[in-house]
Amino acid sequence: MTLLSMSRRLRRTPFSDGVEAAGVKAYTVYNRMLLPTLFESVEADCHHLKTHVQVWDVSCERQVELRGPDAARLMQMLTPRDLRRMLPGQCYYVPIVDETGGMLNDPVAVKLSEDRWWVSIADSDLLLWVKGLANGYRLDVLVDEPDVSPLAVQGPKAEELMARVFGDRVRDIRFFRFDMFQFEGRDLAVARSGYSKQGGFEIYVEGGDIGMPLWNALFAAGEDLHVRAGCPNLIERIESGLLSYGNDMTDDNTPHECGLGRFCNTHTAIGCVGRDALLRVAKEGPVQQIRPIAIAGDPVPPCDRPWPAYAGDTRVGQVTSSVWSPEFETNVSIGMLRLSHWDAGTVLEVETPDGMRRAEVQAGFWR
Amino acid sequence: MTLLSMSRRLRRTPFSDGVEAAGVKAYTVYNRMLLPTLFESVEADCHHLKTHVQVWDVSCERQVELRGPDAARLMQMLTPRDLRRMLPGQCYYVPIVDETGGMLNDPVAVKLSEDRWWVSIADSDLLLWVKGLANGYRLDVLVDEPDVSPLAVQGPKAEELMARVFGDRVRDIRFFRFDMFQFEGRDLAVARSGYSKQGGFEIYVEGGDIGMPLWNALFAAGEDLHVRAGCPNLIERIESGLLSYGNDMTDDNTPHECGLGRFCNTHTAIGCVGRDALLRVAKEGPVQQIRPIAIAGDPVPPCDRPWPAYAGDTRVGQVTSSVWSPEFETNVSIGMLRLSHWDAGTVLEVETPDGMRRAEVQAGFWR
Repeated sequence: MTLLSMSRRLRRTPFSDGVEAAGVKAYTVYNRMLLPTLFESVEADCHHLKTHVQVWDVSCERQVELRGPDAARLMQMLTPRDLRRMLPGQCYYVPIVDETGGMLNDPVAVKLSEDRWWVSIADSDLLLWVKGLANGYRLDVLVDEPDVSPLAVQGPKAEELMARVFGDRVRDIRFFRFDMFQFEGRDLAVARSGYSKQGGFEIYVEGGDIGMPLWNALFAAGEDLHVRAGCPNLIERIESGLLSYGNDMTDDNTPHECGLGRFCNTHTAIGCVGRDALLRVAKEGPVQQIRPIAIAGDPVPPCDRPWPAYAGDTRVGQVTSSVWSPEFETNVSIGMLRLSHWDAGTVLEVETPDGMRRAEVQAGFWR
Repeated sequence: MTLLSMSRRLRRTPFSDGVEAAGVKAYTVYNRMLLPTLFESVEADCHHLKTHVQVWDVSCERQVELRGPDAARLMQMLTPRDLRRMLPGQCYYVPIVDETGGMLNDPVAVKLSEDRWWVSIADSDLLLWVKGLANGYRLDVLVDEPDVSPLAVQGPKAEELMARVFGDRVRDIRFFRFDMFQFEGRDLAVARSGYSKQGGFEIYVEGGDIGMPLWNALFAAGEDLHVRAGCPNLIERIESGLLSYGNDMTDDNTPHECGLGRFCNTHTAIGCVGRDALLRVAKEGPVQQIRPIAIAGDPVPPCDRPWPAYAGDTRVGQVTSSVWSPEFETNVSIGMLRLSHWDAGTVLEVETPDGMRRAEVQAGFWR
């Protein structure tokens, strides 16, 4: 790893002081904002996440707010997922596509009310696409980035910690639903969601000024639960099959290539700007798709670029995320493979910086 | 400085292998791509840049290509600068604004022909704004990111080095003009431009495959010129008054606040989506504006967040870039100040992490 030069352009968050005090060792940059990647070690952080509870500064999941009479119409223009039955209080994972069906982002849409939505974005300036469409189509809607910074509480003890700070009513929140809770007199949306499969919540912290008070309240309430500062964990997210936009897919890929076809109601999502292109894809099916892959041998080095995957001399795809999993004792990996070589059990060779490695397509992710 | 975790999402460039071999010590992330920030030390890199010649991997200046019958119309929609007299072969620095006149980027527009433009972008996904407008207005234009990675050659010996590799015709390129030159049989646009005031060129390297061959050719030709790998230098760019989008200005700011009013021909730039808002700003004038500021005392720590500027107890602005300049023996700085306190000679107090410092508004940048 190389050093990261700090500047205002790599935005700090309302929780950065807490993250630093907790001894963050490394960052990535996500939506031009600091996202912690490492506290103790990736393995130790992973083990702790699976055992206790962690507080994650995921402020970099910036919100795009759509507000006004045309908000719902604009929201449907963005995604092939049919939003007509979505209710206020629900969160939907929504692939966002351009006019060619290429993925521009894979955010979570939060429906606050019929005419007010948040889009909790992955790593691309989706705000600019939404503003461009709103302007070009002359929609009656305001689009901007509000002062909202998500804070995730993840791990098997997350519910207990959250109940201590927000009250037992948090236990009633269902998966991918949210409700409103008070903290220091401020109403905050709290959702049962997060970028792990260890269970937990995301608090949409509105107003940076209450960031550190909330951070401190969570740590004060959770000492006996072994609460720690954490971050999205590379091992756990690959084991769980949680895709990363920019790593596992880009705007070159359709949702179907990403295995997100179940979120595409292409026939009924009337108004989606990528609908025509995706109707074609839905009919013919993708010729490459994301798959879980196990790479044999010792722990692999960091996957900082696509690793080509071969069957004999033929390139049949690439691996884009890979790390050693102590729990599953293999290099858990995510890759995009050609139709001819994506069946479970297919044996491949992957070109890593350490040389060619034997790899096998898995039937499913590890969790 | 903290470590940077590498992943595919932080894209490598066609020159990354060369940058690493040259001993890069730190990166920033710019347009989701690696941008070197440090080789020897910021001071030593600066001195070398002012004395010899450096090769900079500025691939992160991604290109947005506009191609088709409506390309010129769309280009004018993006900026308040009047483009009607711009000729193929010219480069224009163009503020890009949204419908409220807020700065979305401050790129260089490269006019390849009447119906083909490149926009060489600063740090925001301008591609998405341009695609959104093109889609919404149903323009007859293709918008995408081509495989073009700028490589800058900067410093007083840049012309000599470039002439050795591309021939003496490079000496004829005028400032902010470009011409086409061959390298390994490929036609490349070479412009006299760059993010320093030491003179130099930017090569728009089309096709990543010739990246390292060109890199190596420049180093082989320039050994006696003391050619070195370098990068945009924090000291030199502040001394020179070169603004940094995301640091010195954001989408909160109008071009007039950024001192870019001379690039706004608001009355004649018909079609610019921000024109109505900027007509108002042009009439009333900005109430805050970017200024060169000298901060007294010892070298300041890295400016990783806005530093408030005070006159007595009143907050009158902020400093967003600051570093010690060995040449000018002061902390050269860029800040945004209120109308009441932006005159040259005004004395301020700036709140740095090391405490309050005396500062003075300068009449001009240092170069």
